[in-house]
Amino acid sequence: MSHNTFGHLFRLTTWGESHGPAIGCVIDGCPAGIPITLQEIQNYLDKRRPGQSRFTTQRQEPDQVRILSGTFENENTGELVTTGHPISLIIDNVDQRSKDYSDIKSKYRPGHADWSYQKKYGIRDYRGGGRSSARETAMRVAAGAIARKVVPGIKIRGALVQIGNLEIDRANWDWNEVDQNPFFSPDKSSVQPWSDYLDGIRKSGSSIGAVIEVVADGVPAGLGAPVYGKLDQDIAAAMMSINAVKGVEIGAGFASAKLTGEENADEIRIDKNGNPEFLSNNAGGVLAGVSSGQPIVARFVVKPTSSILTPRKTIDEDGKETEIMTKGRHDPCVGIRAVPVGEAMMALAIADHYLRHRGQMGEK
Amino acid sequence: MSHNTFGHLFRLTTWGESHGPAIGCVIDGCPAGIPITLQEIQNYLDKRRPGQSRFTTQRQEPDQVRILSGTFENENTGELVTTGHPISLIIDNVDQRSKDYSDIKSKYRPGHADWSYQKKYGIRDYRGGGRSSARETAMRVAAGAIARKVVPGIKIRGALVQIGNLEIDRANWDWNEVDQNPFFSPDKSSVQPWSDYLDGIRKSGSSIGAVIEVVADGVPAGLGAPVYGKLDQDIAAAMMSINAVKGVEIGAGFASAKLTGEENADEIRIDKNGNPEFLSNNAGGVLAGVSSGQPIVARFVVKPTSSILTPRKTIDEDGKETEIMTKGRHDPCVGIRAVPVGEAMMALAIADHYLRHRGQMGEK
Amino acid sequence: MSHNTFGHLFRLTTWGESHGPAIGCVIDGCPAGIPITLQEIQNYLDKRRPGQSRFTTQRQEPDQVRILSGTFENENTGELVTTGHPISLIIDNVDQRSKDYSDIKSKYRPGHADWSYQKKYGIRDYRGGGRSSARETAMRVAAGAIARKVVPGIKIRGALVQIGNLEIDRANWDWNEVDQNPFFSPDKSSVQPWSDYLDGIRKSGSSIGAVIEVVADGVPAGLGAPVYGKLDQDIAAAMMSINAVKGVEIGAGFASAKLTGEENADEIRIDKNGNPEFLSNNAGGVLAGVSSGQPIVARFVVKPTSSILTPRKTIDEDGKETEIMTKGRHDPCVGIRAVPVGEAMMALAIADHYLRHRGQMGEK
Amino acid sequence: MSHNTFGHLFRLTTWGESHGPAIGCVIDGCPAGIPITLQEIQNYLDKRRPGQSRFTTQRQEPDQVRILSGTFENENTGELVTTGHPISLIIDNVDQRSKDYSDIKSKYRPGHADWSYQKKYGIRDYRGGGRSSARETAMRVAAGAIARKVVPGIKIRGALVQIGNLEIDRANWDWNEVDQNPFFSPDKSSVQPWSDYLDGIRKSGSSIGAVIEVVADGVPAGLGAPVYGKLDQDIAAAMMSINAVKGVEIGAGFASAKLTGEENADEIRIDKNGNPEFLSNNAGGVLAGVSSGQPIVARFVVKPTSSILTPRKTIDEDGKETEIMTKGRHDPCVGIRAVPVGEAMMALAIADHYLRHRGQMGEK
Repeated sequence: MSHNTFGHLFRLTTWGESHGPAIGCVIDGCPAGIPITLQEIQNYLDKRRPGQSRFTTQRQEPDQVRILSGTFENENTGELVTTGHPISLIIDNVDQRSKDYSDIKSKYRPGHADWSYQKKYGIRDYRGGGRSSARETAMRVAAGAIARKVVPGIKIRGALVQIGNLEIDRANWDWNEVDQNPFFSPDKSSVQPWSDYLDGIRKSGSSIGAVIEVVADGVPAGLGAPVYGKLDQDIAAAMMSINAVKGVEIGAGFASAKLTGEENADEIRIDKNGNPEFLSNNAGGVLAGVSSGQPIVARFVVKPTSSILTPRKTIDEDGKETEIMTKGRHDPCVGIRAVPVGEAMMALAIADHYLRHRGQMGEK
Repeated sequence: MSHNTFGHLFRLTTWGESHGPAIGCVIDGCPAGIPITLQEIQNYLDKRRPGQSRFTTQRQEPDQVRILSGTFENENTGELVTTGHPISLIIDNVDQRSKDYSDIKSKYRPGHADWSYQKKYGIRDYRGGGRSSARETAMRVAAGAIARKVVPGIKIRGALVQIGNLEIDRANWDWNEVDQNPFFSPDKSSVQPWSDYLDGIRKSGSSIGAVIEVVADGVPAGLGAPVYGKLDQDIAAAMMSINAVKGVEIGAGFASAKLTGEENADEIRIDKNGNPEFLSNNAGGVLAGVSSGQPIVARFVVKPTSSILTPRKTIDEDGKETEIMTKGRHDPCVGIRAVPVGEAMMALAIADHYLRHRGQMGEK
Repeated sequence: MSHNTFGHLFRLTTWGESHGPAIGCVIDGCPAGIPITLQEIQNYLDKRRPGQSRFTTQRQEPDQVRILSGTFENENTGELVTTGHPISLIIDNVDQRSKDYSDIKSKYRPGHADWSYQKKYGIRDYRGGGRSSARETAMRVAAGAIARKVVPGIKIRGALVQIGNLEIDRANWDWNEVDQNPFFSPDKSSVQPWSDYLDGIRKSGSSIGAVIEVVADGVPAGLGAPVYGKLDQDIAAAMMSINAVKGVEIGAGFASAKLTGEENADEIRIDKNGNPEFLSNNAGGVLAGVSSGQPIVARFVVKPTSSILTPRKTIDEDGKETEIMTKGRHDPCVGIRAVPVGEAMMALAIADHYLRHRGQMGEK
Repeated sequence: MSHNTFGHLFRLTTWGESHGPAIGCVIDGCPAGIPITLQEIQNYLDKRRPGQSRFTTQRQEPDQVRILSGTFENENTGELVTTGHPISLIIDNVDQRSKDYSDIKSKYRPGHADWSYQKKYGIRDYRGGGRSSARETAMRVAAGAIARKVVPGIKIRGALVQIGNLEIDRANWDWNEVDQNPFFSPDKSSVQPWSDYLDGIRKSGSSIGAVIEVVADGVPAGLGAPVYGKLDQDIAAAMMSINAVKGVEIGAGFASAKLTGEENADEIRIDKNGNPEFLSNNAGGVLAGVSSGQPIVARFVVKPTSSILTPRKTIDEDGKETEIMTKGRHDPCVGIRAVPVGEAMMALAIADHYLRHRGQMGEK
């Protein structure tokens, strides 16, 4: 994990700016012989695609992905399988409407990369955020679609569990509900209040934060490595690398500050089939950095979009005080579209650890 | 960052088990010519050392560190400086009292590494937790003492801000208070209530979680790299790699879910000296993964120690249901001793990024 | 350096197969602000391009490179500079003539990847060698064009010094000659005998090996790191990663087996300008893995192309004995086109070490 | 592979200077459950140990290795097995005789690290070469003893094949001879001429280069990865990282420059047992960077020791011209002791690739 590459054995390298000709990625280290279809990658991309409801940005990005390398088509069946070589994916940028950047070109937008990139690189690509654009996350989603297939039997699902002050009622949790509403909410009863609340945010040109929960079922026990290759450490890094994420927690997370040792202990019994069964999952599926076989549960928080219609105080490149307001299309709650991205990052972290564990310990 | 190594250019590799002859580490990539003294490393270790109050484990570990390589003594002044070669540090284990492990040897202690290590390695070193022991963190603290000196002008300080339900009053924050009480609390008014509360926990053989805040001042703008080498991503990984940590946040952290874009924006003005000044620090000093020059602020939560005197349900290696209770010395709130460890991990993450940034962009 | 990525701080990741739609690469970690032009990248590619004389394959690959990300165009001057973000380069494959693979599809060609890839991946992309095609080296050359600009003042040049039994006369060495003949020979007197010899090889459908020498002038002293990050170690890895390379040496290389300590010592004097001056360069510019400031001199050997018109004994996928002959266009001496590739790999290795050294030690 | 760490999944990190209190290493990523004994590690160290004949340095280093972590003793059988955690090995330095460095302290010894380390680090540990001492290779040998056990069925053996102008007669090759003479020569007939020749070198205080060949039998097909993780690339890096090595080759190596495609092709037949059989091994067991199942054959050249009794011209730190002569004990042909080191590096490279391949492709 360094610069623009995530992972050790299953490695994702992404490239591209929001306003260049294309964005893309290279997936290296994928096992050979895994059947994939372009459509299943596209399906995940479509979940992340903007403009699908009034609660996400109205920008239009068809996000049609193409595979440039790393697969082989069976000449009899037409099936695509991975070859074990680098998989290159590309998405052309089509919505590069010529825009007037004169207002933001020399001002530092609070909460954006403008200031810190300028300090780092001494140069600033002011067009659409350049490399800091959330558009990069499309490639994470595409790569995640392949990563999911690397670990047999895993299922990774995400959901939005909080917008502003409005949390879901966990008693209503229903995974089937998640794809039935524009918020990826697992709680049907949250949909109307969230719609009303977000309409207000949207109409006022404001934005609001959110919390996403990602659960990985079927992860085999034994993934992760002490003491700087912990599975939850790498999941934390994975989530924190997503744009606008300001915190991440595993299992009981920050609530464990308030738990006693007795409350926190995930006790073990033998279930009726004679198998070990944990009576709770405060650990979130990770013990001492290694998966226990319980579901992996991670949560992360996405700050409100910095692009809002209310002017904020800032300075310009000449050190003059000024104000800035971001015109144009934006996400009132960018956390919504972070759900498929969080799923993808979970898949990438687990796939990498699956291969790393198999490397060290074999297929016992 | 993989297995037992943290960092890319400033690399820490640790080794050793709690009940072996010694623990140690190798620091690779440290710049040459940095003056260090054994005493300053020891000073940080002494902060972490157990047995300094009734609120930490009564185990006695003098934790005397020795330098085995990587330094050169000026023959005139007697001063030690780093040579740019690997720095090997070692601490002998002295409190390896012969212990009766018969009770825990074949049982899986909830919350410990017993279960997941067994699944991973097919072997379990039941003595004192083996590699999963928090004793490993001593080497982080020692290495952190050197990492702090790599970045000119930085100051890294940590504090305990919450035990159970009891949070500090931030209005009372006083860094000078931190070393004046057994909790590393920055709020004098918290000391008595925390003492009373923890006495209760301790006497009942229970344990409780805690939240630690670490602040790095003087970090130059420009450290960190998009998109998988973000500074906050690596800080999150650093904190999450600490034993018993279940969550980490930067700046406003999870509270940013409830903020609007207007509230969250860290506005910028020009101060009376003509320098840019941020009016708030919800970002925690990191914008788009790159340091802004503001203080870096991170928080992490430490779960309650799993070793408690109340029996918990578990199973043994033969799949039989049983109970377990951990006798002997333990930390009622292991979060206290995590404060110097959190500082060290912050130092390690920043030192690594300082060198990485200098590598890419030079010393502009 | 793992799988399809070369380098640590200046990192090249390549992708693509010879018979897919395109090949490409991602360069990560390049400093920001370096001016580049598409033309200068193209110029190096043109040196490597096949079909420029009768001594290289007659395949036609225009190898027009495009930049997809990582640069920014100055709107006033039109100049391109790097942004510090991943540079994505792509070359479309145009000469994918529909070919009859029926003969080679199920046979293992001696000296090719057929056998070992099949064993590794359980799948074989028989079209044109797939990932093992030397076409991949085009991206090395393109990336090398950028790497050269990372280290101020360096000059990297390569030359062919041996074909079969015919070595150049080093007394005739003239760098200006290298681009004046189809062999990149620095010795004008070698051109006619090499032409005659290679015509014979070519007409008989045979092939022959060669030795390439690459020299880097102006490399600052201090690059490289003990003991597993030695500059010559990474140059050796760089050269050995090129297709068909079977050996690499630095300075006196294998000849140093025959030298005494007295002969081998590169003695030092003060020159007339008062600067240190080495009286010889048996070390090849690297002492104990670290550059000395002398020119870096590396040599590598390229085996004869395995594609020849004389049938060779082999077996097929069913374990039946058979013979194989490679029809079509091929390089009688693939070592010729390896010259610009060797230059590029030298540039990549040095650029990476330049950034790594600057990271550890700053710009002293 | 960076700085002081070799390998990706099976990782060796070494530390220590020749004149510090100890040298050591940490092996990370070793599979759990591998039985090892201290004695088998010691046996390999004893092969490398100096002072065993008049042809190596007379320094006395008992080189007794201790294991500080990463193993678990079966309480019933007393057997040691690896735990999957970092294995820390240490050797105390005992022959640190107080020496007079006044003569070399300010002079740059040709061929040593003095000059390049000074340029790199701005500091020089003049005592015994510091980190550049070949003493570091003891840890490679110790780690190699463990690496050999990671890959089932492999056998790695090395031999000296050339001293100065004197090459072995390959017709006489007998592996059983290697441990019967002080040169690790596989050719009994070479022993007397080499003894006579080296006695001359030794008595005149001179030194001479040598070539070592290392062969790995039983390496499974499929190890290595295109295009920058080639097995031969990493073997080349492994060998080149050894002190004083100036060149490395695989299979036919530099001789392949003179071969035609017909001569070079390793033809394949079916042997009498119905198994594929290569008729030659010009490839040295590696095709397109991936092992073929044939023996891996590598050769490397070791330059003559730079420490000789004849004065050589050099300069001192003040830029004054002077001469230097290295008094004291030295190796007339340091290549001899490089044989077990070369074996160890081969083992480390293969073990790492074995785990990497198993990670990507499983245990098919």
